[in-house]
Amino acid sequence: MREQGKLFVISGPSGAGKSTVVFKAMEGREDLCFSTSATTRKPRPGEQDGREYFFVDRERFVEMIAGDELLEHAVYVNNYYGTPRKYVEEQLAQGVNVLLDIEVQGARQVAEKCPDATKIFVIPPSLRELERRLVNRGTDTAEAIAARLERARQEYQEADFYDYIIVNDSLEQAAAELSAIILAQHCRAADRADYLRAL
Amino acid sequence: MREQGKLFVISGPSGAGKSTVVFKAMEGREDLCFSTSATTRKPRPGEQDGREYFFVDRERFVEMIAGDELLEHAVYVNNYYGTPRKYVEEQLAQGVNVLLDIEVQGARQVAEKCPDATKIFVIPPSLRELERRLVNRGTDTAEAIAARLERARQEYQEADFYDYIIVNDSLEQAAAELSAIILAQHCRAADRADYLRAL
Repeated sequence: MREQGKLFVISGPSGAGKSTVVFKAMEGREDLCFSTSATTRKPRPGEQDGREYFFVDRERFVEMIAGDELLEHAVYVNNYYGTPRKYVEEQLAQGVNVLLDIEVQGARQVAEKCPDATKIFVIPPSLRELERRLVNRGTDTAEAIAARLERARQEYQEADFYDYIIVNDSLEQAAAELSAIILAQHCRAADRADYLRAL
Repeated sequence: MREQGKLFVISGPSGAGKSTVVFKAMEGREDLCFSTSATTRKPRPGEQDGREYFFVDRERFVEMIAGDELLEHAVYVNNYYGTPRKYVEEQLAQGVNVLLDIEVQGARQVAEKCPDATKIFVIPPSLRELERRLVNRGTDTAEAIAARLERARQEYQEADFYDYIIVNDSLEQAAAELSAIILAQHCRAADRADYLRAL
């Protein structure tokens, strides 16, 4: 019997490098997948539909909410973001660990529906460094960056909700920490007790 | 400021391969040390004083108990085993993670004195395999092996006390799991919240 996959919720300020850390940790591994969210925000240059996000219009998104097709959804900077439920459940059943890149609001919704989900908060080494990264990315206006920084400050207040905190200073180290957390969660005694009882 | 080391308690049936897994995980790492226990049992062929154990006589051991020089101690197959407290505390203060190879009784004592200790239970793939390993080791009489197997069955009843269970089937995998658990524990949100508040 193949072991069931586990669900990992990854949150953190925009610009903390969540996606980069996750993709680094996934290199060469088939037991990990990054859940692709649906969103109504416009694609940034270089982003592909079905890769970074499923880009859908507002009408379709409202339909997904109504049809209970989402594990969670949230509004952020005037756009909808949500996690397709069916995709996640199929992966877990196949023994694949699923990583969700979602905000604090969405993380709370998932935690309610999936209490076993492991909650990880990825942060930059400092807010100053976060600002530098957002400016370098060149995709946001000064106002949008200011809003993201204020948002980050607010999110930090909710860090206690998470099980783990990864400080993304060195990408290699951050990815190693994420991989370690995933492997360690598979060793939790609560999950392996069944195995033990069978001996 | 160097991060404080963490304490890891490793238990499991004799013959489960705890030491082998720990030594494998420690290869090339200076941030991990295996606490050396004091014991009154006789050295096995190849064992060195101060490496596998501090081999002491009964009189000295009783003196250590009386002087509160031990973090825990227990009796097992008519011999005393104990963990020198000073050694452990010095390592942790220097940022070194300390691994303790102790039995369930001792693990409970340590957990009371050090509630932050992470408790790991290492088991063989099956009791049949455990028996095979004990027989192959050739250091125990048939009666001693029978006693160890019965002891293992009893210890399995207490597996719920542990945070993690490592099944030592493949040594590489078991060592990788131990390393992952150690790294993941350093990412616990409760420990990194201070860092976050400083930002």
